[in-house]
Amino acid sequence: MLNFDFYNPTRIVFGEGTVAQLAQLVPPAARVLILVGGASAEKTGTLAEVRAALGARSVNVFSGIEPNPSYETLMRAVDQVRGQDIDFLLAVGGGSVIDGAKFVAAAAHYEGDPWNILETGGAKITRALPFGAVLTLPATGSEMNNGSVVTLKATQTKLPFRSVHVFPQFSVLDPTKTYTLPTKQVANGLVDAFVHITEQYLTYPVQALAQDRFAEGLLQTLVEIAPQAIAAPEDYATRSNLMWTASLALNGLIGAGVPQDWATHMIGHELTALYDIDHARTLAIVLPALLDVQRDKKRAKLLQYAQRVWGIDAGSEDERIDAALAATRHFFESLGIPTRLAAYGLGTAAVNAVVGQLGAHGMTRLGEHGDIDLAVSRAILEAAL
Amino acid sequence: MLNFDFYNPTRIVFGEGTVAQLAQLVPPAARVLILVGGASAEKTGTLAEVRAALGARSVNVFSGIEPNPSYETLMRAVDQVRGQDIDFLLAVGGGSVIDGAKFVAAAAHYEGDPWNILETGGAKITRALPFGAVLTLPATGSEMNNGSVVTLKATQTKLPFRSVHVFPQFSVLDPTKTYTLPTKQVANGLVDAFVHITEQYLTYPVQALAQDRFAEGLLQTLVEIAPQAIAAPEDYATRSNLMWTASLALNGLIGAGVPQDWATHMIGHELTALYDIDHARTLAIVLPALLDVQRDKKRAKLLQYAQRVWGIDAGSEDERIDAALAATRHFFESLGIPTRLAAYGLGTAAVNAVVGQLGAHGMTRLGEHGDIDLAVSRAILEAAL
Repeated sequence: MLNFDFYNPTRIVFGEGTVAQLAQLVPPAARVLILVGGASAEKTGTLAEVRAALGARSVNVFSGIEPNPSYETLMRAVDQVRGQDIDFLLAVGGGSVIDGAKFVAAAAHYEGDPWNILETGGAKITRALPFGAVLTLPATGSEMNNGSVVTLKATQTKLPFRSVHVFPQFSVLDPTKTYTLPTKQVANGLVDAFVHITEQYLTYPVQALAQDRFAEGLLQTLVEIAPQAIAAPEDYATRSNLMWTASLALNGLIGAGVPQDWATHMIGHELTALYDIDHARTLAIVLPALLDVQRDKKRAKLLQYAQRVWGIDAGSEDERIDAALAATRHFFESLGIPTRLAAYGLGTAAVNAVVGQLGAHGMTRLGEHGDIDLAVSRAILEAAL
Repeated sequence: MLNFDFYNPTRIVFGEGTVAQLAQLVPPAARVLILVGGASAEKTGTLAEVRAALGARSVNVFSGIEPNPSYETLMRAVDQVRGQDIDFLLAVGGGSVIDGAKFVAAAAHYEGDPWNILETGGAKITRALPFGAVLTLPATGSEMNNGSVVTLKATQTKLPFRSVHVFPQFSVLDPTKTYTLPTKQVANGLVDAFVHITEQYLTYPVQALAQDRFAEGLLQTLVEIAPQAIAAPEDYATRSNLMWTASLALNGLIGAGVPQDWATHMIGHELTALYDIDHARTLAIVLPALLDVQRDKKRAKLLQYAQRVWGIDAGSEDERIDAALAATRHFFESLGIPTRLAAYGLGTAAVNAVVGQLGAHGMTRLGEHGDIDLAVSRAILEAAL
């Protein structure tokens, strides 16, 4: 096991009916800015429920945080925070809204140009507005971690930052809030959580037995619940498991003390930026190809994955790995999510473009060994054609 | 899944050499009281290492916190805190020392008689001294939770309390600090952690898939590492897994959203109080008997346990449960820990005495259904003869 430092102070309030607990979770005298994405929080009634729970507190709303939240939009929210003397943020939505809230929280009273937060990856954040979240879309895990990704619209660049100051104080997870999600978003959430886990698990063994078992347990859970999560939107037990599993996938726990990869995400980010493919869908394209290209370096963990997650025991090592990769691909496809660039009409030109952007963004030493250079990224993208 | 509220702000600093990080973890101007048990922290050099890391800070030491820390002893530490104007506690030891530190932290500036903390189970604690821990004995999980058990020596009563104010700020987990532990304490730690997990897992199903997988993964890990943990004290990987698994066993995570039992602990506490049997050893006596007596109410989870933890697939339901209970008993016995009262020379008189104490302490509705009354406790103890 590698040395590690684990800290996660976010309080999770989980279950049907828990939105009402905002009455106690938000400070009584808070001047609240609610952050939302589009119109769905209002249409579903969640926004009204949140307002009711906040009672007599001063409440304003900032609407319009887009998927892959942009610096440009978020800076408008920062202006509103400053103008209205806001002292508490409440994100109501999915990972994009929560990621956005983290940036707004850090930028509101940042010493210097908030752009610097993204330039330095959050390293110079010394304080942030307190904030909480009401999660409506299980996928990114942002509700229980201190990471955020913001897109600079002007150049279509995705810029991650993290800071100990941007953990949500609390996140309310009510599985019934997912009932109205479009099927596509549920499918995306399943894939997003799945790949968050593999990024922290499919590397090389360091005898971190509990972390491996936890990761495998989360993967098994996603595979087990996926059909019902898609087919039965109002199955409370299934949606509960989806919601909690997605949070556990990226709250720091399964990544503590183990090597991490994240190359799939970095390559995927460029696909989103260039071609506007949903984040999760880019991961489904890149992951199987990456595992195939990197199979020798990931061999031991791939064999463990084959055996423990998919029950694949028979055949040579490479046959078992092939079977595990086929199972992974089939899992994504069964959710209606393609695993090939061709499904989006993309070919060699796209490979060249993505490799170019990776180079431009300095993404030349990716993966748990730092050995995924532009040539390997190209091989991965070609394997995903 | 049941509704839940999960919050755990303890920072874990894990790995060889991490004691030196106390230099950063403890506030620079802190007036520190180090709490230790017997002489081992000094003999092993850990105390000197801790003192070196604390540098020029004001440091005092309170020594003599016994296993099953007593109210009487801890109140002497409280006097020292008050007399020396201490503002930071540092527990160096195992669960007893950390449990003791929690009480001292809460009692130091408690409004009213500190005895009231134990009478009210911690409900009236409104603040506590900040404290950290350097763990030397993996077992209880106290290093990453907010629970504590204190014994009133005068009446040999074990009194639990908990409070959001007594989470350690940090715990330093250096697996090499376990190298000098007596074999018996390592064996006890394995059993203690194992039963912490079963108390939160072997109840009835609520479709909490990730929690079940996590619990099973921790049990599997303990079974997998146990022989090497006993045979090779300086095997870093094994001791790392033992240390982290014991923390994860009782940090609130696997118990979030599921029913919990804890009857084995409550009955075991009386055995410790009356006959001075080590805490973990009482659990090894009670658990197999309790699972046998409660098998119908726990049937679904016992079958899952048999299959997933022990790989038992063949036979009738009761045969599989019998095999799982035999495997559990064999696991404890393989560590040199008896699973029968007879091994301690105890018989029917002890059964009567324990049942009497359970009655005196109001322990008449134990277990996840609250249906373990004194008659069922008697049956469990008789099954453990």
